[in-house]
Amino acid sequence: MTEFIPPGTRWHALSSPFPMKRGGALHGARIAYETWGTLAAQRDNAILIVTGLSPDAHAAANADNPAAGWWEPMLGPGKAIDTNRWFVVCVNSLGSCKGSTGPASIDPATGDLYRLSFPELSVEDGAAAAVEVVRALGIGQLACVIGNSMGGMTALALLHAHPGIARCHINISGSAQALPFSIAIRSLQREAIRLDPMWNGGHYSDAAYPESGMRIARKLGVITYRSALEWDGRFGRVRLESDRPGEDPFGLEFQVESYLEGHARRFVRQFDPNCYLYLSRSMDWFDLAEHAGQKHVDDRTQGDDVMAALASIRLEKAMAIGATTDILFPLQQQEQIALGLQAGGADSSFVPLPSPQGHDAFLVDIERFDPAVRGFLARL
Amino acid sequence: MTEFIPPGTRWHALSSPFPMKRGGALHGARIAYETWGTLAAQRDNAILIVTGLSPDAHAAANADNPAAGWWEPMLGPGKAIDTNRWFVVCVNSLGSCKGSTGPASIDPATGDLYRLSFPELSVEDGAAAAVEVVRALGIGQLACVIGNSMGGMTALALLHAHPGIARCHINISGSAQALPFSIAIRSLQREAIRLDPMWNGGHYSDAAYPESGMRIARKLGVITYRSALEWDGRFGRVRLESDRPGEDPFGLEFQVESYLEGHARRFVRQFDPNCYLYLSRSMDWFDLAEHAGQKHVDDRTQGDDVMAALASIRLEKAMAIGATTDILFPLQQQEQIALGLQAGGADSSFVPLPSPQGHDAFLVDIERFDPAVRGFLARL
Repeated sequence: MTEFIPPGTRWHALSSPFPMKRGGALHGARIAYETWGTLAAQRDNAILIVTGLSPDAHAAANADNPAAGWWEPMLGPGKAIDTNRWFVVCVNSLGSCKGSTGPASIDPATGDLYRLSFPELSVEDGAAAAVEVVRALGIGQLACVIGNSMGGMTALALLHAHPGIARCHINISGSAQALPFSIAIRSLQREAIRLDPMWNGGHYSDAAYPESGMRIARKLGVITYRSALEWDGRFGRVRLESDRPGEDPFGLEFQVESYLEGHARRFVRQFDPNCYLYLSRSMDWFDLAEHAGQKHVDDRTQGDDVMAALASIRLEKAMAIGATTDILFPLQQQEQIALGLQAGGADSSFVPLPSPQGHDAFLVDIERFDPAVRGFLARL
Repeated sequence: MTEFIPPGTRWHALSSPFPMKRGGALHGARIAYETWGTLAAQRDNAILIVTGLSPDAHAAANADNPAAGWWEPMLGPGKAIDTNRWFVVCVNSLGSCKGSTGPASIDPATGDLYRLSFPELSVEDGAAAAVEVVRALGIGQLACVIGNSMGGMTALALLHAHPGIARCHINISGSAQALPFSIAIRSLQREAIRLDPMWNGGHYSDAAYPESGMRIARKLGVITYRSALEWDGRFGRVRLESDRPGEDPFGLEFQVESYLEGHARRFVRQFDPNCYLYLSRSMDWFDLAEHAGQKHVDDRTQGDDVMAALASIRLEKAMAIGATTDILFPLQQQEQIALGLQAGGADSSFVPLPSPQGHDAFLVDIERFDPAVRGFLARL
C-alpha cells in the first residue's frame, strides 16, 4: 500500500467535508497538482489539464521537478501547450494514489487506510475537486480545459456543473458516457484484481499483494489502449531470441508478449489496486446523459439525452480529437462530443486522426496530436 | 478433470504412433467425429467441417443424437449445408476434451491423465488427424472443406499438406497466420489460467479447479468474439434490476456484465483448462508462411510468404467469408486467404459480411452466413 507522489507536487486542501456524489463525504482530503508558466495579471491565460486513470499531476518538467512528465512533448515553452503564453494546471485525480486523496490514503477518522471504506467515487467528484484547485489559484474563468481519456469525462462533468468556468475545451480521446465494450473490459480488469486471493477484499499489503490480478488488469489495459494495426507493423510474428526462454512451457515466446510483460512489470507495483478499482468503476458509471434533466433508466440508446446534456454546456470554442483506431473510446464518441457542444453554441470541431496507436495515441503520436492542439490554442 | 463427450459420438483410432509436428508421438489416440447424410456411391459428395477451439463434433442433430448442435441452423436437410445432398463429417479437434485425445485424456503409457505431458500441439497435428478420419471413411477426395475460426487454420494446413484432398474450400472467419493482437489476447487468457493457484501446473481436479482463471479467460474470449457495435445496440448502458445486487461493492451492475457472467458460468466447468491452453497456443504458433518453402524468422510482415503458401494450394473453387466487425480474425485475413487461393488458380471469392456480431457472427448471424454458404455449395 503506497502512494506514489512525484517530487515537487503541490497540494490543495479540499473543502471539508467534501461531499461525494453518491453519498458520504471526505474530511481533510487534498488534491495534488502542478503548474507551469505564469498566471497573467488579468488571470485570463489559465489552462486546466485533467488526466486519464493512471497519470500523476507531473505532465511535464517544471522548476519544481525537472524530470520528464507523461505529456512532456506537448507541454512546455514553445510546445503545443506553450507555457510561455499559458499558465497550465494539471491535477491528479481524486481517488488516485499519486498524491490526491484516495483509497490508498489515511482516513483521518480512523488513522487507518481507507481501502474499501473510501466513499463511492464518481467522475463528477473528481471534477468538483479539480474546480476547487482552479478557484484556489484565483482563476475565475479558465481559457481552456483539456481532458484526455477519463479526463475527457471529467472535463465534461466539470463544464456541465460550472457554467462559464471555461471559454474553451479540448476533449482528447474522451467520451460523454461509458459504452458496453469499455464497461466489459474494465469490469473484467476489476474482476481479475478481485479474484486474486491476495486482494483479500482490499486488505493487501506490499508483502501480500494482488500481483497476478494487477498483471492481468494492466495487460488487458495495454491491449485495449493500442491497436491491432499498430502491432501488425510493430511486432508481426517476431519471436523472442530464445524460442521459449526458461522452463515454462507456456512462457513468453513472441515479442508482443514481451511488450505486454514489460508494461505489466512497470505498472503492477506502481499503482494501488484499490485506487484502480475505484477510478475504473467511476468511468463505467459516467454518463453525461444523467444531467440532461431527466434520467432514462432503461433507455438503451440515450443518444438524445447525451446530446441534450452536451448542448447545455456553454463554450466559445471546442474541439474533440480522437484516433481512428481507438477501440476503448471509439471515434464516434468524440464526434458526438463535438456535435453536442456545437449544438450548445460553441464553435466546435471534430478532429479524427488516423493514428495507428489507438486510445493511447495522444501520448505517443505527437506528430499528429501536436498540430491539432497547437493550432487550436494558437487561434484563441 | 472431465472429458465432455456428446452422446452418439463416433471415434476413429489414429495411426499409432501418431507423430506430432513439434516432436513426440501419440499412442492409441482417437478422434471423435459425427456424420450427417449419406456418402454417394461415387464418394464425391463429402464435406469435412473443422471447428473453432471449443466446439465438439456435434454440429447439428443427427440420428445418433437428436439434440441441437452448435451449427444447427446451417446443417441439415434443406439447410445451407444440405444433408440431403452432402455427406458431412465434423471432427472434434485433436487436443480437445470433447471426445478426441488431448491433455485431459489418459496416457496409455502411464495410466494417468496426460495433463502437461501431452506433446506440444500444432494446428497441423489437428489437420493430420482430421485427414485420417476422412481416409478411414473411404473418402479419396472431399467435395469441400469448411473451416471456422481455428478450423479455418486447420483447413489451410490440411489443404496445404494434402494436395488434391479437396476440390473446394470455404474458410469462415479464419486466418493463414496468427497476428499480434490475437496472440496478445490468447496469451493473456492462458496467463489468467496459469496464474490461478488452483491450476497448479496443470495438476488440478474437479475439487481444486482453476475456476477464476477460466472465468477470466472465457470472459475475455467472449469480449473479443463479439463487437462493440453489437453491444451498443444490445446492452447500451442498461443496468440490472437491482443497481448492485448483493453486498459486493464491485459486483455486477450492467447488463453487459451479466451477459459475460452467464457465458463464463456455462463454460468454466465445461472445458478442460489444460486442453484450452494447448489449443490456444497452437493457434498462436500457426503460420502458413512456414510452409512457403523458406522460413523467415525475423520477417515482420511475412505477407509474401503467406501468399506464396496459399498460392501453392490447389483448389477448383474457394470462398473466404468474414465479418467486418471481427477484431480477433480481422477481415483482411480472410481477404488474404481469398487472394492467395486465387493466385493458386482457384475460382476464389472474398465475402465480407457487415455482421455486427464480430468473430462469432458465423454462429449467430445466420441471415447473412446462410446465403453465402448455401450459394457456394449450390453452385458446386
